[in-house]
Amino acid sequence: MTYCIAASINEGLILVSDSRTNAGIDNVSTHGKMHAFNTTSDRKIVLLCAGNLATTQAVLEQLHRDKLKNTPINFNTVDCLSAAAAYLGHVSVEKQKQHINAEGQSAFNPSASFILAGQIGDEPHGAFMVYAEGNSITTSANTPFLQIGESKYGKPILDRFLRLGNSIDEAARCCLVSMDSTIRSNASVGPPVELLIYRKDSFSLDEYYSFEGDDDYMLQLRRCWENKLREAIAALPDLDKESAKSMQIDL
Amino acid sequence: MTYCIAASINEGLILVSDSRTNAGIDNVSTHGKMHAFNTTSDRKIVLLCAGNLATTQAVLEQLHRDKLKNTPINFNTVDCLSAAAAYLGHVSVEKQKQHINAEGQSAFNPSASFILAGQIGDEPHGAFMVYAEGNSITTSANTPFLQIGESKYGKPILDRFLRLGNSIDEAARCCLVSMDSTIRSNASVGPPVELLIYRKDSFSLDEYYSFEGDDDYMLQLRRCWENKLREAIAALPDLDKESAKSMQIDL
Repeated sequence: MTYCIAASINEGLILVSDSRTNAGIDNVSTHGKMHAFNTTSDRKIVLLCAGNLATTQAVLEQLHRDKLKNTPINFNTVDCLSAAAAYLGHVSVEKQKQHINAEGQSAFNPSASFILAGQIGDEPHGAFMVYAEGNSITTSANTPFLQIGESKYGKPILDRFLRLGNSIDEAARCCLVSMDSTIRSNASVGPPVELLIYRKDSFSLDEYYSFEGDDDYMLQLRRCWENKLREAIAALPDLDKESAKSMQIDL
Repeated sequence: MTYCIAASINEGLILVSDSRTNAGIDNVSTHGKMHAFNTTSDRKIVLLCAGNLATTQAVLEQLHRDKLKNTPINFNTVDCLSAAAAYLGHVSVEKQKQHINAEGQSAFNPSASFILAGQIGDEPHGAFMVYAEGNSITTSANTPFLQIGESKYGKPILDRFLRLGNSIDEAARCCLVSMDSTIRSNASVGPPVELLIYRKDSFSLDEYYSFEGDDDYMLQLRRCWENKLREAIAALPDLDKESAKSMQIDL
């Protein structure tokens, strides 16, 4: 399984991914799912990957080869993020098709999904989620984040906290809590956790972190979070016992 | 969809359920999923229901009729909660079978799952989750809660907070937050929210609450929770910028 988050807020982008892959519960290994591309200096493009590892690896390689060969469409030639997402979707569908027979069937599920995030030229920074079918969606003011993989455990904290106007450092901590909750609740999502903070217009990927399972900062974050949750629950309003009702008994 | 929680802690039981049912996203209605039985005075038995509404209604009716007819096995004759769960599992499988043909197929999915909770005689209070297949599991010291239906959104807060030694009032607030998170993240889970607090050895179902969507207490709980989360994120440790690394670029 996989869990990746991209938040696109006023101050920039936050990308977070786990590193656990598995083929069955008894075949677990570690592969980073956050990939940056060596593009021309007017752009930064980063991918997060979920789904079939053979597909995501084949897609990444094709994207790199297209760039090296300077094919007409590649990450150096696209002029906006939505064009980059459309190109990625096209490559992904092509790679999946190689494992689907004429009847539209496959011996395994080759599907993969991606988040593409970054900034190109004078365009604003942004993030797109590319579905296995090749189409894509982006963030909005109401929902300034995207998730791929095991998204449910970590969604409530994003729903409740993440807003366009958050400070980028707070939004990054919120995304790390979302990842930590998912790791705690699903054994098939695991460290190292990668975090990239991209400040808008910086064209720099220097704020990159990789946290192992026993990383001091992550342990401190988890401990502090759990203490704060306990305090929060203690501070919630008491039930008004007067408003208790009789329960309907039997049909 | 449905979301129900049962927590079984030292001080007693907390049961929470939503009331939304749907046949397709455009056919939504309201049915309570928490049902108490009028049993002999030495016991209290309460069910939470998820899955096919026709199945859960047929099961509830059968359980009531068995009790009225005083069949050899019914909720008045079982001598422990695990026997009650086994009996419920048997009735559930029988009701589902009525819609499965000789080839083991059905025109629809008749499956349903249940949580059975309560206390019988001198036995300790407890809770059992009864799978669609009729077998069941109970809680443990490590995981003192059970969930049925849309369980993922609301699981992290239970994983992080719920312990055997919690006060029952705090545990109840924690379960309400878990429900509120699920309602916020999944439109097919909705109010009224039912809450039952059962204090061990009380054999009383008097602490029962039903909260509509615009209930003052639930709105206050949500507002207070979201404020506390914002404070918690603000209080989390800052990232150590010194520990940022260079990101690997390209393959």
